[in-house]
Amino acid sequence: MSAGEILVEVTRGIAVESRHAGSVAVSDAAGRLVFALGDVARPTFPRSAVKALQALPLVESGAAARFGFSDEELALACASHSGEPEHVATAAGALARLGLGAEALECGAHWPTSDAAARALAASGVGPTALHNNCSGKHAGFLCLACAMEVEPAGYIQPEHPVQREVTAALEGALGMSLAEAAVGVDGCGIPTYAAPLGAVAHAFARFATGEGFGPARAAAAKTLMRAAWSAPFQVAGTGRFDTEAMQALKDRAFVKMGAEGVHVAALPELGFGVALKIEDGATRGAEVAMAAVLARLLRPEGEQAAWLASRMRRRLINWEGVEVGELRPGPALSAA
Amino acid sequence: MSAGEILVEVTRGIAVESRHAGSVAVSDAAGRLVFALGDVARPTFPRSAVKALQALPLVESGAAARFGFSDEELALACASHSGEPEHVATAAGALARLGLGAEALECGAHWPTSDAAARALAASGVGPTALHNNCSGKHAGFLCLACAMEVEPAGYIQPEHPVQREVTAALEGALGMSLAEAAVGVDGCGIPTYAAPLGAVAHAFARFATGEGFGPARAAAAKTLMRAAWSAPFQVAGTGRFDTEAMQALKDRAFVKMGAEGVHVAALPELGFGVALKIEDGATRGAEVAMAAVLARLLRPEGEQAAWLASRMRRRLINWEGVEVGELRPGPALSAA
Repeated sequence: MSAGEILVEVTRGIAVESRHAGSVAVSDAAGRLVFALGDVARPTFPRSAVKALQALPLVESGAAARFGFSDEELALACASHSGEPEHVATAAGALARLGLGAEALECGAHWPTSDAAARALAASGVGPTALHNNCSGKHAGFLCLACAMEVEPAGYIQPEHPVQREVTAALEGALGMSLAEAAVGVDGCGIPTYAAPLGAVAHAFARFATGEGFGPARAAAAKTLMRAAWSAPFQVAGTGRFDTEAMQALKDRAFVKMGAEGVHVAALPELGFGVALKIEDGATRGAEVAMAAVLARLLRPEGEQAAWLASRMRRRLINWEGVEVGELRPGPALSAA
Repeated sequence: MSAGEILVEVTRGIAVESRHAGSVAVSDAAGRLVFALGDVARPTFPRSAVKALQALPLVESGAAARFGFSDEELALACASHSGEPEHVATAAGALARLGLGAEALECGAHWPTSDAAARALAASGVGPTALHNNCSGKHAGFLCLACAMEVEPAGYIQPEHPVQREVTAALEGALGMSLAEAAVGVDGCGIPTYAAPLGAVAHAFARFATGEGFGPARAAAAKTLMRAAWSAPFQVAGTGRFDTEAMQALKDRAFVKMGAEGVHVAALPELGFGVALKIEDGATRGAEVAMAAVLARLLRPEGEQAAWLASRMRRRLINWEGVEVGELRPGPALSAA
C-alpha cells in the first residue's frame, strides 16, 4: 500500500479513473504543525520547491544588489520557468550584468518545458541553450553569488564549491536541521538535493513567510524575494502555469512554488504559515489540485481569488474534440477539510 | 490509502523519491487468475489498451480484406502512435483506400505525442491534423468498417452508431460480460470507454492470445491483428516507445499495448495468458516498468530479450547534464515475484 492519503481523484464520466496519494504539512514559524495529512516525518526531496531558500544567500550577501539584479531577475532566481522568450531574455540579462554568457551556466540545455515555446523555437530553426533550462535563473543567481564572493565560478554546482556551501547553510538554517547526514541526490540541473521531512520544509517556509527564526538580513532577503515574485509572477513559471497564476490571483497573500516529482510549497505571510506537500507518485497535476485545496482551506478566499482557486481545485478535463470527459478534484481527505 | 501494491519505485541517489501503486492481473483463457496483485475486481477504464479488441470487427467482418488493408494499416488500427511521418502516411493511405480524407476522422487533431515529431512539424511551418492524432489508425479502421457495412460513416464515434455497436459487442464477447450497466466515459478520441475489472481485461487478452472462447472467424481475426503488429511494430507506437520495442525484441512471444492513465495489457500466445495492469495514479512510466517486470516473470527470457526487458525494468534516470541521478525499478511486490 502507498504511504499518504488520497489527496486527488481523477474522474471520467461518473467514475474515479485514477488517484493520487500524498502528504501535506502546514507549520507555523515555531514549528508547530497546524495541519497534517499522511506521513510528514519521512525524508522527501524538496527539489525545485526550495529555490527561494537557495536564493537567500544571493540577496542576503548583497550580491544581487551589488550587480543590480531587478525584480524580474530575482523572481527568475526562484523559478522553474517554461523557457518562453521572456524567461530566456531575463536570464541572458542577468548573466550580462556579470559579464558572463550562457556558456557559464552548468545546468545543461533542454527544450522549453512549454510545448508552444519549444515548437516556436524549432520553427525559428534553432535549438535550445542552457538559457532555456527551467533552472537558468537560479544558476544565474549562483553565478552572481560567485562573482560577489570573488571565487572561481566554474564548478559552482558541486557540493564543495563555496557557492553551494552558502546555499546548503541557508537551507539548513531555514529547515532547522543539519543536512550532513541527509540522503543526498543530484537534481535535474546538477546541484545537490537533500531529503528533509515535509514538516521541516513547511517550517522553513513559515520562517521564510515571517522572518521569525532568521537574522534581520536573512529576514529582509526573504521579504525581497517574495516581493520580487509578486512583482514578476510570470518569471517564476510562465503562461498558464499554476505558480504564476496563483501569485497573480492571490498577490501578497501567498508565495507559491512547485518542485519536480509532485512537491509543492507555499509561504503565507498573513497567517505566518508554511505549506509543503508531496504527491507520492510525483504527479504535478496532483500537487496543483492539492495545493489549491490547501490554499482555499487556509486563506478563505473571496471573489476572484475564490474563483481562481475553485477552477484549480476542480479542473475540467477536455478531450481532443473539446468534449468535457472528467475532472481533477480533491480526494475525500482534502475535500472534507 | 491508495488501492494496490507498490509496483514501481523511483529512486534518487540511494533514496526512494516516488512510488507508483497499482494492480496486476494475469489470466488464462478459461478465466483463471494465474497471478494477481492489488485489486483486480474493481472496474477500470482500459482506454486505448483494448484497441486490438476494438479492431476485431474490422478484420472479422471482412472489411479490412475487402479494402485491402496492409499489415501496417492493421497495426495502426491497434495503435496509440506518436504522430511521426510514417504513422501519418499510413493513416492517410488507409483513408485513401476508402476514398476518404482526413476530414472524415472524428478523433480531433493534436500535436504529435513525440516531442521531436511535434517540433519537426512546427519547423515545417504547418500544424497538426486529425491524422496526427494518436488514434487516427483506429478511427481509419472504424471508417473502413462503416464503408463495408454500407452505413453513413458520420457519427461513427457515437455509442448508438452501427460501428460502435459492433465494437462494443466485440468487447463484450472478449471480456465475457455485458457492458450495458458498466460505468461509461468518453475517451480522448471521442468514442465510449467502458470500465471493466482488470481480471476480465486479462481474460479478454488470454482469449485474444489463444482464440479460445471465440468463434473461428474472431479467433482468426485476433491472429491476423497480432501478426500485423509483430510485422509492423513501429506502427503500434513509434520511436523509442515501449510497445514498439517490446514487439521488436520479443517478437511473436507477446502482443503488448498501453492505454492512457497507466493501463497496460499483453497477450502471450505461447503461454495462453493475458495480462492487464493499472497504475493507480495513471503514470505511463510506472505501467511500463511494471509490464516489463511481469513479462520477465512470465516469459523467462534469455539473451537479447532478457537484456531488453532488464533495461526496461530498471530504467536509468539521466539529468540535463547527462548525469545518472536515479532509476525506475520494480517495487517489492513485483521484484520478489
